[in-house]
Amino acid sequence: MRKLHIIGIGTGNPEHVTIQAVRALNAADTVFLIDKGDAKAELLRVRREICERYIEGAQPRFVGAVDPERDRAPGDYGVAVDDWHAARAELYERLIEQNLGEGESGAFLVWGDPSLYDSTLRIIARIRARGRFAFDCEVIPGITSVQALAAGHQIPLNGIGEPVTITTGRRLAADLSTEGATVVMLDGRVDFAGLDPDLVIHWGAYLGTADELLIQGRLGDVAELIRETRRAARARHGWIMDIYRLSRPAT
Amino acid sequence: MRKLHIIGIGTGNPEHVTIQAVRALNAADTVFLIDKGDAKAELLRVRREICERYIEGAQPRFVGAVDPERDRAPGDYGVAVDDWHAARAELYERLIEQNLGEGESGAFLVWGDPSLYDSTLRIIARIRARGRFAFDCEVIPGITSVQALAAGHQIPLNGIGEPVTITTGRRLAADLSTEGATVVMLDGRVDFAGLDPDLVIHWGAYLGTADELLIQGRLGDVAELIRETRRAARARHGWIMDIYRLSRPAT
Repeated sequence: MRKLHIIGIGTGNPEHVTIQAVRALNAADTVFLIDKGDAKAELLRVRREICERYIEGAQPRFVGAVDPERDRAPGDYGVAVDDWHAARAELYERLIEQNLGEGESGAFLVWGDPSLYDSTLRIIARIRARGRFAFDCEVIPGITSVQALAAGHQIPLNGIGEPVTITTGRRLAADLSTEGATVVMLDGRVDFAGLDPDLVIHWGAYLGTADELLIQGRLGDVAELIRETRRAARARHGWIMDIYRLSRPAT
Repeated sequence: MRKLHIIGIGTGNPEHVTIQAVRALNAADTVFLIDKGDAKAELLRVRREICERYIEGAQPRFVGAVDPERDRAPGDYGVAVDDWHAARAELYERLIEQNLGEGESGAFLVWGDPSLYDSTLRIIARIRARGRFAFDCEVIPGITSVQALAAGHQIPLNGIGEPVTITTGRRLAADLSTEGATVVMLDGRVDFAGLDPDLVIHWGAYLGTADELLIQGRLGDVAELIRETRRAARARHGWIMDIYRLSRPAT
């Protein structure tokens, strides 16, 4: 039986990798490195560094591929995602069949944790449902940008006894928590449109790396600083990954 | 200047520890092991195993202490927590002053991640505000039971593009998400009172350990199985740590 390890590798700091992930990397006969077409050189470098630093002795086969393109302006969001996942399942299935023998172990590396805003597990479930071959699967959790944000600011995510909602930029207006804190991921605009300026924000970018940026304060006071910092950083790096937490003002 | 590392060590699997945590443990002159009075032998064993397994060469000083008791039936929840945090800040401050010299590095070990339902960072902030001595602080994220639950079930926490709310048993009725998934921590009762039986539940206990238990299904179908499994496991182990995720039925 083939065995797949879906490994969370953290957010860019190679030392965020767990001992469990290191062990799975060393057990892998094949490491699958699948990129979005626009994968950034810096992100590729970190992933290669993780493999080079932690895999000892015999090296696995490395199999690279580029994810199928996703329709970014679909008429129907659900259908577009479904088509995209179907195309990725076909690709991953072919890669596994061609590059992983019976009884071998393969590793898929996932930024952050496979459980949060990542579709690798959905793709693996599709391959299982297609039933062309049997395989075992193990998921290895990794440090998310949510945790790296809290660690960078040295704050708890939750108020005492309060909830935390994790959502996307797209859904922020609907999901902003009135009872607790809200963590916003995947916000391409970061314009803070319509938000109460008295909210407290903790913002971070390139978390866990040497380029980490952190800004916190009353939203109305620091919103423009964050937007400017973000613009300048994106121009300098060519890309940006950022995240922020919103909470009610302390009383 | 003294330096404190607040280290997340995962949920019971010693291999959940990150390389960053291993490095900080090895740099520590003193490791502070602070327990609740009811700390379980199994949890103590895992923490000792982490130190023994990963600290190489010269061993740090180990300083143990028992957390002050918390008023479990207070007239005012907020005041009781405030008093408890104040007492803990005094204790931690004294432990640091007595067991960590100038220029030395100390480590506090935290189950899961210091950012989620843990008050160590609030205690450290109080010590800083008291101002008796200066110190640097670094937070090292760790794998939470939320992630271990998702990894055990091999599921994403979020529906596609949907939010995730993390809350406590105490607040579940108010915080159950209608738009996405809800993860419930610290539920001492697990009676599922008043919940829609058509919800899907993914439940786990002793996550990441050899004793891991996982049950999933339609809530109405598996609620009694979970309650019975939980009762029997708690009787066998003498304690239980569990967590669950609720989501709407797949359409």
